[in-house]
Amino acid sequence: MSRQSNRTTDSKKMNSELFTLTYGALVTQLCKDYENDEEVNKQLDKMGYNIGVRLIEDFLARSSIGRCQDFRETADVIAKVAFKMYLGITPSVTNWSPGGDEFSLILENNPLADFVELPDNHSTLIYSNLLCGVLRGALEMVQMAVDVKFSQDSLRGDNVTEIRMKFIKRIEENLPAGEE
Amino acid sequence: MSRQSNRTTDSKKMNSELFTLTYGALVTQLCKDYENDEEVNKQLDKMGYNIGVRLIEDFLARSSIGRCQDFRETADVIAKVAFKMYLGITPSVTNWSPGGDEFSLILENNPLADFVELPDNHSTLIYSNLLCGVLRGALEMVQMAVDVKFSQDSLRGDNVTEIRMKFIKRIEENLPAGEE
Repeated sequence: MSRQSNRTTDSKKMNSELFTLTYGALVTQLCKDYENDEEVNKQLDKMGYNIGVRLIEDFLARSSIGRCQDFRETADVIAKVAFKMYLGITPSVTNWSPGGDEFSLILENNPLADFVELPDNHSTLIYSNLLCGVLRGALEMVQMAVDVKFSQDSLRGDNVTEIRMKFIKRIEENLPAGEE
Repeated sequence: MSRQSNRTTDSKKMNSELFTLTYGALVTQLCKDYENDEEVNKQLDKMGYNIGVRLIEDFLARSSIGRCQDFRETADVIAKVAFKMYLGITPSVTNWSPGGDEFSLILENNPLADFVELPDNHSTLIYSNLLCGVLRGALEMVQMAVDVKFSQDSLRGDNVTEIRMKFIKRIEENLPAGEE
């Protein structure tokens, strides 16, 4: 679906349940469409990427946040502004690598996975993998190549849900970017 | 995906843009999966139905609303409470039939379709048809059979988006209901 360019910041606050259930319908559809969990995980990441490269424009307009000074500031903006804005939660930022190029977002609650239980035959499904793609796509549009993946998932029995983010490199400006 | 039964009413308020884009990804996926718009429209309605039969439980818990006295009250609850809660908008209720068994919801803005433009080759796509299914499914769980369809859609050039709702019958209690 194409989108008009005249974005505004006039948006509506809503509860997350309809989104949660609609996301569940999307994942269920992909599980029907693709042969195995690995393919579904890839598709979710790719869809998320395409969402992220669009969502960043809305985010920058809405938050009035400029360029971050370093990866630590980026981490804080993602957790305290972006997650709060679009998912209504504030993950904690933790587990920094000594070099300051890796950190984790810990989600005590994951709205995408509220009330979801993975069926036994989908034990390798990374249910919320869309989020990794969104983060990757959005950051790429602000010239940051970042590796994003779930390292823990409460849906798979872990105590918390943890997204691990690793800074790869700063992307040269003016490179073409867009849908994958 | 199955859902646990211990629902709570502890939820998060969020902006609609991530939901809007995720819904777009779902519709795009269905357009890839099915041969024509008519099939996609059907699938969206069916997915919506399955969402509605689940969402109603959350709605009743969150709103503390009991049984409506008549279809007019139902209309008001849908527009002023349910749409507000899950989409952040309040459609107007209008165009009542003389018999009081039909009305329209007029959406000045449709969050699901924000910034969307239908491609020329999808001129018969009812982009937001999920909503009709949600309403149908949710109402069925409170013993009301209601026909729900879009009669105008701003995505297709109409001035407003209009959902037409027609009361069919009261459903006998204790009939089995569930996924279609």
